[in-house]
Amino acid sequence: MKTVGYAAKSQGSELTEFAFERRDLRNNDVEIEILYCGVCHSDLHAVRNDWGGSRYPLVPGHEIVGKVKSVGSDVKKYKQGDTVAVGCMVDSCQSCDQCDNNEEQFCREGMVATYAGKDKKTGDMTQGGYSKHVVVREEFVLSVPKSLELSRVAPLLCAGITTYSPLHKWGVKKGSRVAVIGLGGLGHMAVKNAVAMGATVTVIGRSESKKEDAVELGAQHYLVSTNDDEMKKSQSAFDVIIDTVPVKHDLSIYTPLLDIDGALIIVGQIGPVEELNTVPLLMGRRQVAGSLIGGIAETQQMLDFCGENNVLPECEMINIDEINTAYERMEKSDVRYRFVIDMESLSA
Amino acid sequence: MKTVGYAAKSQGSELTEFAFERRDLRNNDVEIEILYCGVCHSDLHAVRNDWGGSRYPLVPGHEIVGKVKSVGSDVKKYKQGDTVAVGCMVDSCQSCDQCDNNEEQFCREGMVATYAGKDKKTGDMTQGGYSKHVVVREEFVLSVPKSLELSRVAPLLCAGITTYSPLHKWGVKKGSRVAVIGLGGLGHMAVKNAVAMGATVTVIGRSESKKEDAVELGAQHYLVSTNDDEMKKSQSAFDVIIDTVPVKHDLSIYTPLLDIDGALIIVGQIGPVEELNTVPLLMGRRQVAGSLIGGIAETQQMLDFCGENNVLPECEMINIDEINTAYERMEKSDVRYRFVIDMESLSA
Repeated sequence: MKTVGYAAKSQGSELTEFAFERRDLRNNDVEIEILYCGVCHSDLHAVRNDWGGSRYPLVPGHEIVGKVKSVGSDVKKYKQGDTVAVGCMVDSCQSCDQCDNNEEQFCREGMVATYAGKDKKTGDMTQGGYSKHVVVREEFVLSVPKSLELSRVAPLLCAGITTYSPLHKWGVKKGSRVAVIGLGGLGHMAVKNAVAMGATVTVIGRSESKKEDAVELGAQHYLVSTNDDEMKKSQSAFDVIIDTVPVKHDLSIYTPLLDIDGALIIVGQIGPVEELNTVPLLMGRRQVAGSLIGGIAETQQMLDFCGENNVLPECEMINIDEINTAYERMEKSDVRYRFVIDMESLSA
Repeated sequence: MKTVGYAAKSQGSELTEFAFERRDLRNNDVEIEILYCGVCHSDLHAVRNDWGGSRYPLVPGHEIVGKVKSVGSDVKKYKQGDTVAVGCMVDSCQSCDQCDNNEEQFCREGMVATYAGKDKKTGDMTQGGYSKHVVVREEFVLSVPKSLELSRVAPLLCAGITTYSPLHKWGVKKGSRVAVIGLGGLGHMAVKNAVAMGATVTVIGRSESKKEDAVELGAQHYLVSTNDDEMKKSQSAFDVIIDTVPVKHDLSIYTPLLDIDGALIIVGQIGPVEELNTVPLLMGRRQVAGSLIGGIAETQQMLDFCGENNVLPECEMINIDEINTAYERMEKSDVRYRFVIDMESLSA
């Protein structure tokens, strides 16, 4: 079937309108008319092929919200008109231990990414959500709680689950002491999710500049990482630290802030961090870990949790023809906190 | 009471005979006649004041085995003639959350180290096990299973618990896949403990040179870290890696060897490690952690486990007047795998 989107036609090029084909529905497929798509920093990395593997034309977008337009003959969970969502992956082997354990993001054969992935049947490159329609197998389609304001749901599909999953997996609950390093797209969702889980939340920033924002988002405390005195007073103060900093940085100023058995979980930087001092790790059995989105079941759980607790990202709505400007602004961290494309602005 | 030991009289000096006083028994104290004391690399660090805090004369030694000579009036667990042991700590506050949780090594007030620590009542510096006698409060005295060959028990008190604790805390059991990096005092105990727990154990070394030793100790596999091909084939192969390397090194060649949710636990290096690549952490929720000895209850559990499974270190017995040569050899890793001082060689 024909559709239209916005694509980078070559590495690093601006995004422009692009007419392309979605696959015809297989029996277990859901055809979705996309209403909103979030803009994630990964989209820009893919456009520039920063991580390798991109092919062009490339349609980014993996924070997708829409309405079911039609379903394949075997689809049971969804019907025409349902409000649904698609996140960072659209397929996996469905038979390895990780898939069996609802951790499709760690599928032994590799998950199929929503864009710049490789369709398991045809080998064609997958194309993302900056488009009018998408066709996704039923197992990777999520249900959106009716209570949520639809135009703000999209960023939950990546920024939401990326921060919900480590909070959930590391057992954050009422009374947990959580710190969040960095207050961008990921960081602001980490704060909102942790607050909704009942944690006492501290945002850690390099200066006082984001203090007011942190409090507005629900954080109880704010800690300036360049203030040695404050940092010293906060030693052993946190059970979990979510580190959303997306560049090379020094973890060793943060690990002493963890309590005994505490964990610092990296969700931002994909690449090197500075030399690590093992002393805080040994002297308190502290740990440094990474986390990657979440499985489909956990993503649905996160959406339901957000529905029950009215957890929604702060969004700035844009038209699709503003995407290149949005990328420029995103690079300067000039967004509070996530751009969402209103797909109505794209003519079919 | 008077006793005699071997002490460094000043920073970095050779150890020589030293007559000194042990405190008179408090009501909850146990007086132990020391039969054997293990030689740990930390002893040498303390003699040289590598970590700060040493005062002189300093009697090292925190792998202590002996017989109860007398007990204070309130002591219930031990009586004259019992075979007992003392490890790396001799006191803690006994009232914080960590102490309450049997994690005295993480006592909020700081544990009192067996030597170069500070007695909680008198403020005097504690003196270690290279001596004829030691006086320790009942709660920090351990019971030695009768089944164990006594002359080889001492290294369990530091090398044993340091490797048992992370294996135990990270849930190693029958069928677990464990790798051990480095094959010195700690490494060889990690292998023996993991094998006794039923794990499949791989030793990782820089060359083939320790392969035979690894197999003799019970390891099923040996992996050469400089063999890229073998290392690639071993990706995602381990649930737990115990890293005993005591110098600055690169963790990022090992983290990809962990399976999803696997943990690399540092017990050797206390200080910096090289820049860390976060990719293996994020792409498999892998973690890097540290671990420090174990609590008293866990140390007793370890001794009982070793008794049941006849887990004992490989030792080279020395007389106390050989200690300075032993230090020189230990620095060159010329020991398989732990020196133990026969305290009979020290005249009272």
